[in-house]
Order: sequence, then C-alpha cells, then structure tokens
Amino acid sequence: MDFEAFFREELADVREDGRYRVFTDIKRHRGRFPQATRFLDGEETQAVTVWCSNDYLGMGQHPVVTEAMHAAIDECGAGAGGTRNISGTNHHHVLLERELADLHGKESALLFTSGYVSNWAALGTLAARIPGLIVFSDALNHASMIEGIRHSRCQKRIWHHNDVEDLDRCLSEYPADVPKLVAFESVYSMDGDIAPIAEILDVCEKHGAMSYIDEVHAVGLYGPRGGGIAEREGLMDRITVIEGTLGKAFGVMGGYIAASADLVDYIRTFASGFIFSTALPPAVAAGAAASIRHLKESSAERDLQKDRVATVRAKLDMMGIPHLHNPSHIIPVMVGDAHKCKRISDWLMDNHGIYVQPINYPTVPVGTERLRLTPSPVHDDGDIDRLINALSEIWSQCELARKATAA
Amino acid sequence: MDFEAFFREELADVREDGRYRVFTDIKRHRGRFPQATRFLDGEETQAVTVWCSNDYLGMGQHPVVTEAMHAAIDECGAGAGGTRNISGTNHHHVLLERELADLHGKESALLFTSGYVSNWAALGTLAARIPGLIVFSDALNHASMIEGIRHSRCQKRIWHHNDVEDLDRCLSEYPADVPKLVAFESVYSMDGDIAPIAEILDVCEKHGAMSYIDEVHAVGLYGPRGGGIAEREGLMDRITVIEGTLGKAFGVMGGYIAASADLVDYIRTFASGFIFSTALPPAVAAGAAASIRHLKESSAERDLQKDRVATVRAKLDMMGIPHLHNPSHIIPVMVGDAHKCKRISDWLMDNHGIYVQPINYPTVPVGTERLRLTPSPVHDDGDIDRLINALSEIWSQCELARKATAA
Ligand SMILES: Cc1ncc(COP(=O)(O)O)c(C=O)c1O
Ligand SMILES: Cc1ncc(COP(=O)(O)O)c(C=O)c1O
Repeated sequence: MDFEAFFREELADVREDGRYRVFTDIKRHRGRFPQATRFLDGEETQAVTVWCSNDYLGMGQHPVVTEAMHAAIDECGAGAGGTRNISGTNHHHVLLERELADLHGKESALLFTSGYVSNWAALGTLAARIPGLIVFSDALNHASMIEGIRHSRCQKRIWHHNDVEDLDRCLSEYPADVPKLVAFESVYSMDGDIAPIAEILDVCEKHGAMSYIDEVHAVGLYGPRGGGIAEREGLMDRITVIEGTLGKAFGVMGGYIAASADLVDYIRTFASGFIFSTALPPAVAAGAAASIRHLKESSAERDLQKDRVATVRAKLDMMGIPHLHNPSHIIPVMVGDAHKCKRISDWLMDNHGIYVQPINYPTVPVGTERLRLTPSPVHDDGDIDRLINALSEIWSQCELARKATAA
Repeated sequence: MDFEAFFREELADVREDGRYRVFTDIKRHRGRFPQATRFLDGEETQAVTVWCSNDYLGMGQHPVVTEAMHAAIDECGAGAGGTRNISGTNHHHVLLERELADLHGKESALLFTSGYVSNWAALGTLAARIPGLIVFSDALNHASMIEGIRHSRCQKRIWHHNDVEDLDRCLSEYPADVPKLVAFESVYSMDGDIAPIAEILDVCEKHGAMSYIDEVHAVGLYGPRGGGIAEREGLMDRITVIEGTLGKAFGVMGGYIAASADLVDYIRTFASGFIFSTALPPAVAAGAAASIRHLKESSAERDLQKDRVATVRAKLDMMGIPHLHNPSHIIPVMVGDAHKCKRISDWLMDNHGIYVQPINYPTVPVGTERLRLTPSPVHDDGDIDRLINALSEIWSQCELARKATAA
C-alpha cells in the first residue's frame, strides 16, 4: 500500500470540505493578555487581541500563579523525573491533590497529565473493570469521555442531551442489580448550556447509578470557591466522581478526578493512562495549586468576568448580532456555514487584529458553525467596543442576518 | 451494586498480592539532584539520594532548561490557554516541533501532552483509520502502545520480543497488498535491552510495512545529537514514525512523533487525543526545546553517564550482586520476589536514604522483580560507593545469592 498517497488523499478530502485546520501561531504576552503577537511562516506579523481563549479568568498571567511556578522551578527543577510510582511523585503533586479534594469536598483527588487523560483513564478504567457496568452517556459528551467509554468496550447507552426523562427511561430498561454509571458535563463548551444536575442526580439515585460529571468548563468559574456548578448548587456531595481540568480557568495544565478515597485509590491502582506516564512538572502542579487557592478566596475575577460577559451580550444584542442565549460565560455567535465562518474569522484577524477561531465540524454539527467568544476579566471596554464594531461591520459587508434589537 | 465495597475488595486483593503501591513523596532539589527530601504523611523526614529517576541526564536541573522555562513564563505566562486549534498554539510549540523534526531528520513533528498520549493517539489513529491495517506489535511493547492499538480495534499480531525471524514469519502470513505496521521500541525500559533495528527495518521493507519506533528511553541519550538509537545506527531515514518523550532524558514533559509531513498532518487532523486537549504550557515547550538544543551540541552529559553506568556495573560485579547485562544505561538488579524486593527497597531508604523503587508485577513479570538503577551524570563517586556498600550489606543480611566476581 502507498501510505503516503493515502494520507495525501484523505487530507485533500478534508480541505475540500473546508475542514482543514491551519493553526494560528501566537505568542501571548504575560501581563498584557488578551494581547498577543501573531506569527506567520515563522515571522512576527501583527498584534492581536485573543477572544477565544479558555484561560477564562486570565489566571494564566496572574502573579500568584507565575510566581508559584518560578519558585517551584528554582526549588525542584523542570520535570518530575518519573512516573508517579517511580520517583515522580513530587511533594507539589501531593499538595495539589489535597487542594483539589478540598475544593470539591471529597475524600481524595488524583492528578492526570490532562483533562483529556483524566476522563479517558477514569471512565475507561471504571467501565472496563466493573463487571457488567453499563454507561449512560449524554449525547453531547466530550471526545475524551466518549473515547474512554469506547475503549472500555462496556455496554453503552446514549441519552438525549440534558434530557432527564430520557435518562430515566434508559435507566429503567435495566434491572436494579445491573451496575450503572451516568456520565455528563456541567457546562457544555460549545453551546454554553448547563446540565440540570439536581434532576440528573435524582434519577441516578433512584436507579442506584454512579454519577460522573465533567466540570472542565466550570471549575474556577462557578460556586463561591470555584468548585463548579455542582458547588454553586450545593450538589457536590451527591456526585460520585467530579472531573476537572487545570488548563482552562485555572490557567495552567493537567486534569483530575475527585471522589471517595477508595474510588480514587482504585483508579490510581488500575488506570494505565495514570500509571505509565511521567508525572506533571512540579512547577505546573505548584502553579495550579496557587491558582486554585487564590480562586477559593477571591471572587473578584469571577465577578468581573460575569460583568464582561453581560456587556458583550448586551452589545451584540444592540447590534442585532445573533448569539446563543445560555446561562454560562460562553458566547457562541452563530454563523451557520463553514466557509463563511472561516472568512469572517480571517477578516477579523487581518483587518482588526481580532482573533476568534472559527468553530466548524466535527467540533460542532454542520450548519451550526460559529465564532465562540469567551470574554474574560482581562478584556477592557476598548477591546469590547473594537470587537463589536468589527463584527457589525463584517455583518453588514456579508449581508448576514441580524436579529431584532430586543433579543 | 455497592460500588464502594467493590473497590475496597479489589484493593484488598492487590494488597494481598503485594502489589499495592505507596507513592514515595519527595521534593527534588534543583542544583543538588540526585539529592531530595522525603515526606511522610505530609512531614519532611529525611534526605535521600534518588537512584531510580528517568531524568537520565539530570537535564531537569540544567540551567539552560530552567532558564528557558523562567524566560517563557515571564514572556507568555503559565498555560497555553487553549487546544492547539483554538488559541492554544504558542510560538514555543512551533519552534519545538521544528527542533524535533530536525533532531530526527524528518519533514515534520507533532507535540502531544505526553509520550503516553503520543503513542496512544498516533497508533490508535493510524490503526483505526487505514482500512484493513494489521499491526505487528513486539510482545514487550509499552502500555501506551498496547492501549492505542487496542483502542483502534484493528487486527493485531504479537511477535516474540526482538525476534526478527518471528516478525518475518508473522508478516509473511498476509498478502503483500494488506497494509501493515510494525510497532516496537529501541531501548526496553525494564530489561534495558535494545532492538535489532536494522534487521527489523529490513523485514519491514521486504513486506512493505510501515515502521513505528518508540525511542522514549533513548532520545537525548544515544546518537551524536541525542536522536536515539536509530540516529546512532544511521537508520532514522528508514523509519516511518519515530516517537519520543520530553519527560525523561530531556527532563521536562510532553511527547511527540516525527515523520513525513503528510503523515504528521494526518495525525494532527484526525487524532482525538491531540485535537481535544489543552496544549502544553509554553514554558514546558521552551524548556524542552532548550534541552534538545543543548543535547544536540553537547555530548558531555552522555559521556559522563556512560562512565557512571560502567562504574556502577563494575562495582556490582565486584560485589557479586546480580544484575542484567545489557547494552544500555539501565541497570536492573534482580531480586525475583515481590515482598523481598519491597523489603530491600524500604531498608535502603530507611537505613541509608537511598531511594530505589521496587519494580514488581504488572510492570515486570512475576519472578523477575527488581531494583532498577539509573546512574546519571549527577551521581558522584560517593553516591555510588554508598549505594554499593548498602546493597552489599543487605545482600548479606538477607542471604541473597551472589554471582562469581567475574560476571
Ligand atoms: C468538556 C471537556 N472535557 C475535557 C477536556 C479536556 O481537558 P484538557 O484540555 O485538560 O485535556 C475538554 C477540552 O479540552 C473539554 O472541553
Ligand atoms: C516505552 C515507553 N513509552 C512511552 C512512555 C510514556 O511516556 P511519558 O512518560 O512521556 O508519558 C513510557 C514511560 O513513561 C515508556 O516507558
């Protein structure tokens, strides 16, 4: 077989579909984020304002985080030097796991190299090892959960997105003694909608199912201490496993689960993706711990973010630019066409130095292509005005539909 | 189902088998590695010398690495702030990928969050998406490769470890037009043996199979520029995919593949584990790039490591302490019993502050339990003498078998 020809042809198909991705090469500027410099073919080209980052609160440049990282590098060096079992457990990991258990009011927590690996490894291990376990997975769950469930080869049922009645129906089809796990997210990152957690937990408890929630787009952002939507709603103690990331609102990198001591010990003992991989650098763990500690105490970043999100929404409404209304911090500006979405994004970048990545299939369904805006405490009024004016200009140029002013 | 009881029982079984792992909580000291401080129940207890790290060359504390990390934090902040496609591509990633492509003489390279993810995602994607692909996997391949192949649900054949004739036999069973991929490692981390790469490539070429090599325990360590065993033997251009880690000899964290531009673009476009995960922190990328650049120019660390490894081997031989002879930097001191192995390790730690993690099942087969020593340029003669004397003492105490002096 001519493998090279195969790769070329498959890539040609992707290009034809308008799904070929060219990564935008930027250098973020600490202390001046959301400002960044864009590179093209290795050359610095222009100053840009980033409007699509998942560094939702700007913690990636917060002095408590960067100083903790500097200190840990000076103290412990660069990497962990091993897997967790073979010399790679650094005291900063232990402290961070304690911080995470406390954040979620759980007995224990376990670090992974990423949120992706935490979902894949934790769900994959539970579903592969609990005999006869059936996983009930929300239809819009993230790729990392889907792959973990798939990998386990367990029986799986997909329930309609955020549809508690459908979940109840699916669970009811199986005898009470069949072990069950319900997997879902709190904030869904592309539509910004939020799961009815209390109702889902009622159904889980009714059927004796474990509950597994991905709070990747909520930790740090919601709840009085940044514990996520489940904290805000007083539900953390009813959830079996809370999964989160250290790479979005906490501004660094890594993933974790928080749960009972025995469940965590079980994953620690059996999850291949946890065991056989070099641990996070001590500086990454120290930076994340500092970020979590800060956001447990301080709501200033959360409050300011809410204000910025509301301001952007209000101004989009004033201009009649259509965006999905949702109860979260994510503002999807709907375009509905892959090529148009890409063209608008390119125009914003080239003409206004505004960086909003177009979100196309397969990340979202065809026909719902969008620009996903994530206003943060570090976007000032000038940034917002420049964004809104530029969007309005391109909306006119492209003769895109507007909504009535009062949305 | 009582899930908690299930977890407890399974963990009790693990304890009974002597396979329960208690992580050793240490703080490495930058500038004084292999010295570290050990913590027990959160309290500092003792000074230890680490003898089981995969920071093989001490690059985790090299000033070029730590200074590059400090500089990148000051410049770009803590995290990348997004997936590679959505605002997370930092210029430091682009530079590092270029450095890696150059290291292996390939057109292109792609970063992953870890070596584990690079194997899992790259092999998983190739094997799942190339119609009818059969993977021929060395019997001792690493968990991350096994899981990637497993995940793809492709047809798979295991060939006897490092046995080129068996590989040839397996490949011969299938028609020439069946697409094939041969996956293996260069240095196997637990026995320290090295694959007959040239002979494997001969067989691959004879059958038109792609070759996929994991050089995780070789990159930085072998070859005039640290390109691995394949560089040392002048074979890099004959290998389809070279996979490596940034978390062992390079001293930081992360994983990668290097291959043709189209193959890399294909993985970049289709691998879920690459696409849907926050990118490495810019400081991690910058530190790794600095480490690679340094080791391309400098052989001092490699030369000194060879000297340290030879010294430890010679002194073990003088004492008659049995260890696997192999052509690599890894020295497995064979114990052959899980409980004894653990007891010796504990005794070394408690009485001499010598930290060597016992390696038990499932990492190695039952009956081959061992202490895996990894001498590095930062171990001085005093460290070595203390290690050898302590081992000799416990060998006498436990009445363990010795080998004739001339091994
Ligand atoms: C819902 C969800 N879960 C998990 C992840 C993976 O987390 P990480 O980026 O830390 O790998 C992501 C995105 O990256 C996500 O959107
Ligand atoms: C042979 C081999 N491949 C891959 C890996 C995974 O690399 P990483 O530690 O960067 O996840 C390891 C060990 O951790 C390994 O021993």
